[in-house]
Amino acid sequence: MKKKAILAYSGGLDTSFCAVYLSRELDLEVHTVIVNSGGFTAEELAAIEKRAYELGSVKHEVIDVTTRFYQDCLRYLLFGNVLKNDTYPLSVSAERMFQSLAIAEYARANEADYIVHGSTGAGNDQVRFDVAFAVIAPKTEILTPIRDLKLSRQAEIEYLQKQGFEMSWEKAKYSINKGIWGTSVGGVETLTSHEALPESAYPSQLQRQDSERVEITFEKGEPVALNGETLEPVALIQKLNELGAAFAVGRDIHVGDTILGIKGRVGFEAPAPLILIKAHHLLEKHTSTRWQLLHKDYIANWYGTLLHEAQYLDPVMRDMEAFLTSSQNHVSGKVFVQLKPYQFDLLGVESKYDMMQSKVATYGEENNAWDSRDAKGFIKIFGNQLKISASLHDEN
Amino acid sequence: MKKKAILAYSGGLDTSFCAVYLSRELDLEVHTVIVNSGGFTAEELAAIEKRAYELGSVKHEVIDVTTRFYQDCLRYLLFGNVLKNDTYPLSVSAERMFQSLAIAEYARANEADYIVHGSTGAGNDQVRFDVAFAVIAPKTEILTPIRDLKLSRQAEIEYLQKQGFEMSWEKAKYSINKGIWGTSVGGVETLTSHEALPESAYPSQLQRQDSERVEITFEKGEPVALNGETLEPVALIQKLNELGAAFAVGRDIHVGDTILGIKGRVGFEAPAPLILIKAHHLLEKHTSTRWQLLHKDYIANWYGTLLHEAQYLDPVMRDMEAFLTSSQNHVSGKVFVQLKPYQFDLLGVESKYDMMQSKVATYGEENNAWDSRDAKGFIKIFGNQLKISASLHDEN
Amino acid sequence: MKKKAILAYSGGLDTSFCAVYLSRELDLEVHTVIVNSGGFTAEELAAIEKRAYELGSVKHEVIDVTTRFYQDCLRYLLFGNVLKNDTYPLSVSAERMFQSLAIAEYARANEADYIVHGSTGAGNDQVRFDVAFAVIAPKTEILTPIRDLKLSRQAEIEYLQKQGFEMSWEKAKYSINKGIWGTSVGGVETLTSHEALPESAYPSQLQRQDSERVEITFEKGEPVALNGETLEPVALIQKLNELGAAFAVGRDIHVGDTILGIKGRVGFEAPAPLILIKAHHLLEKHTSTRWQLLHKDYIANWYGTLLHEAQYLDPVMRDMEAFLTSSQNHVSGKVFVQLKPYQFDLLGVESKYDMMQSKVATYGEENNAWDSRDAKGFIKIFGNQLKISASLHDEN
Amino acid sequence: MKKKAILAYSGGLDTSFCAVYLSRELDLEVHTVIVNSGGFTAEELAAIEKRAYELGSVKHEVIDVTTRFYQDCLRYLLFGNVLKNDTYPLSVSAERMFQSLAIAEYARANEADYIVHGSTGAGNDQVRFDVAFAVIAPKTEILTPIRDLKLSRQAEIEYLQKQGFEMSWEKAKYSINKGIWGTSVGGVETLTSHEALPESAYPSQLQRQDSERVEITFEKGEPVALNGETLEPVALIQKLNELGAAFAVGRDIHVGDTILGIKGRVGFEAPAPLILIKAHHLLEKHTSTRWQLLHKDYIANWYGTLLHEAQYLDPVMRDMEAFLTSSQNHVSGKVFVQLKPYQFDLLGVESKYDMMQSKVATYGEENNAWDSRDAKGFIKIFGNQLKISASLHDEN
Repeated sequence: MKKKAILAYSGGLDTSFCAVYLSRELDLEVHTVIVNSGGFTAEELAAIEKRAYELGSVKHEVIDVTTRFYQDCLRYLLFGNVLKNDTYPLSVSAERMFQSLAIAEYARANEADYIVHGSTGAGNDQVRFDVAFAVIAPKTEILTPIRDLKLSRQAEIEYLQKQGFEMSWEKAKYSINKGIWGTSVGGVETLTSHEALPESAYPSQLQRQDSERVEITFEKGEPVALNGETLEPVALIQKLNELGAAFAVGRDIHVGDTILGIKGRVGFEAPAPLILIKAHHLLEKHTSTRWQLLHKDYIANWYGTLLHEAQYLDPVMRDMEAFLTSSQNHVSGKVFVQLKPYQFDLLGVESKYDMMQSKVATYGEENNAWDSRDAKGFIKIFGNQLKISASLHDEN
Repeated sequence: MKKKAILAYSGGLDTSFCAVYLSRELDLEVHTVIVNSGGFTAEELAAIEKRAYELGSVKHEVIDVTTRFYQDCLRYLLFGNVLKNDTYPLSVSAERMFQSLAIAEYARANEADYIVHGSTGAGNDQVRFDVAFAVIAPKTEILTPIRDLKLSRQAEIEYLQKQGFEMSWEKAKYSINKGIWGTSVGGVETLTSHEALPESAYPSQLQRQDSERVEITFEKGEPVALNGETLEPVALIQKLNELGAAFAVGRDIHVGDTILGIKGRVGFEAPAPLILIKAHHLLEKHTSTRWQLLHKDYIANWYGTLLHEAQYLDPVMRDMEAFLTSSQNHVSGKVFVQLKPYQFDLLGVESKYDMMQSKVATYGEENNAWDSRDAKGFIKIFGNQLKISASLHDEN
Repeated sequence: MKKKAILAYSGGLDTSFCAVYLSRELDLEVHTVIVNSGGFTAEELAAIEKRAYELGSVKHEVIDVTTRFYQDCLRYLLFGNVLKNDTYPLSVSAERMFQSLAIAEYARANEADYIVHGSTGAGNDQVRFDVAFAVIAPKTEILTPIRDLKLSRQAEIEYLQKQGFEMSWEKAKYSINKGIWGTSVGGVETLTSHEALPESAYPSQLQRQDSERVEITFEKGEPVALNGETLEPVALIQKLNELGAAFAVGRDIHVGDTILGIKGRVGFEAPAPLILIKAHHLLEKHTSTRWQLLHKDYIANWYGTLLHEAQYLDPVMRDMEAFLTSSQNHVSGKVFVQLKPYQFDLLGVESKYDMMQSKVATYGEENNAWDSRDAKGFIKIFGNQLKISASLHDEN
Repeated sequence: MKKKAILAYSGGLDTSFCAVYLSRELDLEVHTVIVNSGGFTAEELAAIEKRAYELGSVKHEVIDVTTRFYQDCLRYLLFGNVLKNDTYPLSVSAERMFQSLAIAEYARANEADYIVHGSTGAGNDQVRFDVAFAVIAPKTEILTPIRDLKLSRQAEIEYLQKQGFEMSWEKAKYSINKGIWGTSVGGVETLTSHEALPESAYPSQLQRQDSERVEITFEKGEPVALNGETLEPVALIQKLNELGAAFAVGRDIHVGDTILGIKGRVGFEAPAPLILIKAHHLLEKHTSTRWQLLHKDYIANWYGTLLHEAQYLDPVMRDMEAFLTSSQNHVSGKVFVQLKPYQFDLLGVESKYDMMQSKVATYGEENNAWDSRDAKGFIKIFGNQLKISASLHDEN
């Protein structure tokens, strides 16, 4: 009986090569799996499935993790206002982690002998796949033909042709990865440091020249309604992605450190993530205490860093999620956003927990919370340590 | 002989009232001082001086601290990419601190009996003044007539009229504070939480509809040339402020915590600070190590917070400045920025320290720095702790 | 009808003076309350109650918060291994906070008109009382006769005598504050910087010259058994305090910053807190991941600092507690401790979650988890960024 | 002509095997180098040199890095009060890094073709060697026969015998590594989790039953005199090591994470490091501000962690050293320590920068720095944010 190999299949050249190579060269029973975390349409999934079977998959599985991805990851990124290096919503980093987990669990549940991914030895993805596979399915052996064989595209195409597969494998000018939390765009300009991507490189093109006011409702840090319409968070993100894409907002280039210690650069468009994170952050500035904002920054910065670096399964991530969840207890209210071509403005918020609207004290006007004598006393004592240290450092 | 009072004089109603009140009611010899940290024109300073003498100042002094402000503070804010709550370059917070220090030093050098500021008891500025005065000039008594008397504008005007000063004191719709590191705009909409400032509230109005590419050269983290023209940092900032203002970039609304524990909201326009900080940060992403970026974030976040909260004189600030200065050793190179109406894009960088352009290894392509076997070994060991903890947590 | 004043009564001179002063000078109906957080015996409480009624209290209440104190505070200090400035278990800081909260809640529930504490204007306790009272019982006015009147001990005694109260008020050489989380000892040597407290200043004296091995069982970070005997945490702490006190362990002098910005020094003996914290920390080193240990340190250091500084009611404390609780999920097992005169040694641990005893890999011996080729690959890639930055910094 | 191999030679079995193997099997010209960072006596070094030449070294070099080790590393560990996991002064971790650097520099200066260390593939040391070699001497190839061949001790001995080397290679019960910053002790009990090392396992045995008062003088954080005698820091550390060893102080067991992600346990005795760190920390509590203490903790914790993890060459370490150096500007004065069998007590400090002895304000007594009215005002405003957030969270 043939041994069973679970292949993480994307429909692209590399994993198509793997599918054939595994069955014909290694004599394995190939099961293909694709994990949708919000980036594929039904048409795309159908086309991929068709191709998988053509290439000899004995079983093709589509696993949709979008809701789980939101529940177990994206909402924490939102709670933490996570933008890696102050720019990147971790679109691919986060998504790939959850694809890896889903495949590893599928392989374990299906008692696969092998689990296969198509990553090269150069990037971050291999780390996410290898780590997730080894932790979740420790008894299943990992195979990585692309990393091991280091074939050129041309050699892969020729191999497939020799095996009778005459498919078209045009290489796009830019490498695109689409997911619910953003689409990455790599190639040409991102390989060097000094140029931006041209307008045409972005999948979404500007469709609107006008402006639109949007109202986002958050409940304990989670987006629950758009312009008053209650939506599941996943549906809300998808709708906001469409709306934002029409205005071409949420584009930028991320420069960052890979897990392998080298620097990389990648463009992205992520309308909903950027709008939601900035809106959510504004709401927090009104509803969270100074200490919450300060310490959340620390936690969130590390949460994003460790997620990016394939440490999602470290128990510390659960500890941070507990912190972040607790921090959202009063992050409820509405945020008003103005969408314009290529940019958006935050207009303001409305919240019953808005600390600017407290009856206890309000900024900038005379109030009953304290008087000038209190203020003098406060500052006198507030400055004690500075006075003491200055007096000692001066007189010596 | 009359006792000598040094009054921090701005030319506005509150400190004009103080000038008269101090001499006529408290029988003090009033010396007025104004500190310019880059926000006043020569005409404005002349008008303020004229008014000071009219109101009875026996000596009016203009202290320019702009260069010192840059050297002792702004460049650290730039090294740290400091944007309070991810938004605000600390325009007024930083400037007021340096105005306070200059006045305190002037009072100490001139052996003043009293040192006077016109702040109310409601805001942050009183803390900066009181603390700086008490630490730098501990033997000089602080007077604060506005805070103590709590008079209305109308009462102040009437007092001045009764004393024979018929000046016009129109209240502007928005309260504006101009400095080299940004102009703050408060009033009307910023008193509540839900609305943005109207276009007209900003002192600078959009003047250009086109787009311009700008090249900023940094040397050890400091901006030293603009479009190839070598400039002193202060001159460069001023020039970039003008250029950016024509495009109306660098505007936003800051929501934050005052030192007194309440929330406040203020608009600002700060073209040069925003452009420089974002450009500098991009250059760092290319030239600094992962660990530098991570720990600089921690230090810079606290540096900004403590500066905002009037802790500039704490020795820890010198320790942080030492860290930040060291971190800039290789932050040298050019950054390319595209200015457009209301926004700017970072195009890229060019630096001999660009870690993306190292010969050791380059992202995304096959390289000689490691092979697939190395990568497998790396990931295997990299995942050790996750595998160990998962195995223990699972089997129990 | 007289107005009702709730007085935080300790039985000492200051609050005894307050009791009489409130009723005779301010004509208030005085209710006395004492909060026991584990430091008082039944005899002491009875004596205090007797004195309260003698001094005119219309109602004396004893509120025991020991269990709540453990549940809502001490266990988090244990989870975090909190020793302020690496020394002090926050014995008094934590206890006073919970006494303040209990009195504030009692005052609110009993609709008091006034709430009274006996602190002076010099120390930390006034901050804890004032803050707790103002937040929990915002409608009740705070009275602080001792702080306001600034009477000498002698003047207070004379006042009481004049009012007919001939009690004996000897001043102890050292000021002692006893609680379940430690006893503080202040006076004489602690007022200067250069001397330790003499042996005789400590309430507990060395009783045993031998040595005893103790076994402490933790379950999710909480101590649940001592030498195999299952105990409620509070009972366990009390028993361990007695045992440790016989060996005179857990003594030291804390030097730290008060909330008012000045430095203070205080001796303490806290046998159980020190033994439990060190034992718990050792167990964590075996059962927590590197990332958990690193980030717990950050959180715990701040949790202790903010608790010390009367910020217990800030929501960020709840966020940190959520983090700390989550971090304890696998901190279960036994710790072996050797008690000796004046010191104790940690012998080791036993835990099913001990990461040193995993089958995946073990330190210091050849293992099957990786081979030399893996190690070389790991290190090669692990050093990538160092190699890249060194190559750039060298050649320029 | 033979190619030149620089071998890091310790005199032990593994590197002795390497010496012979390199010359006889690989036909290399073997140069042996030993780096002394304070752990070897002249006799030991002479014996090692003799053996090196016997085994065929064409040139044996002793490089003493003790002073450099102090200047470039140990003083920063002292500035930071670095005890890894609150226990371990990083004795071996730090020393091995500096040995690796010295050998790498020697190899580069001598244009070696190969650079060889004798580490296995199981532990941390291989990482320190490999990383230092690759960064400092990138053109020199690294050889690691022990890691690659994985021979048993017996096989190594037999090989040496077959090659004519009849040396005695007794395996000590405990593996000892001696250096100026501490001696590590591994074996038997440290391989499991539940037992302490027996008294006899420690190289230093208790020699004194009495007690001795020691006075250590620090100047800007560095130890400069012992009992009034001015000494170079290295000499002072060595003298204090001897003194402390007679009292058997500074012993403990470290449990920590290796760079490879697994847990390890090792005993150590480090009298001078422990005494100096604790004494230095006490002096800082008197002379540093609250903010310095808080942020130094963060920096120092990371400095120790990154040093342990072979990241000494990352530029961020220089940034942290700049912070730490600045933080020591006023850490000058004397610390009094009482040495006793197995333990030591900190008695107190004397410093002109002691913030407890400032004339501005002193703890615990009535003072002129503020009055009760100031204190009330301070606390009222200090509690503002707690009052605001509680009011909002309550009423909703």
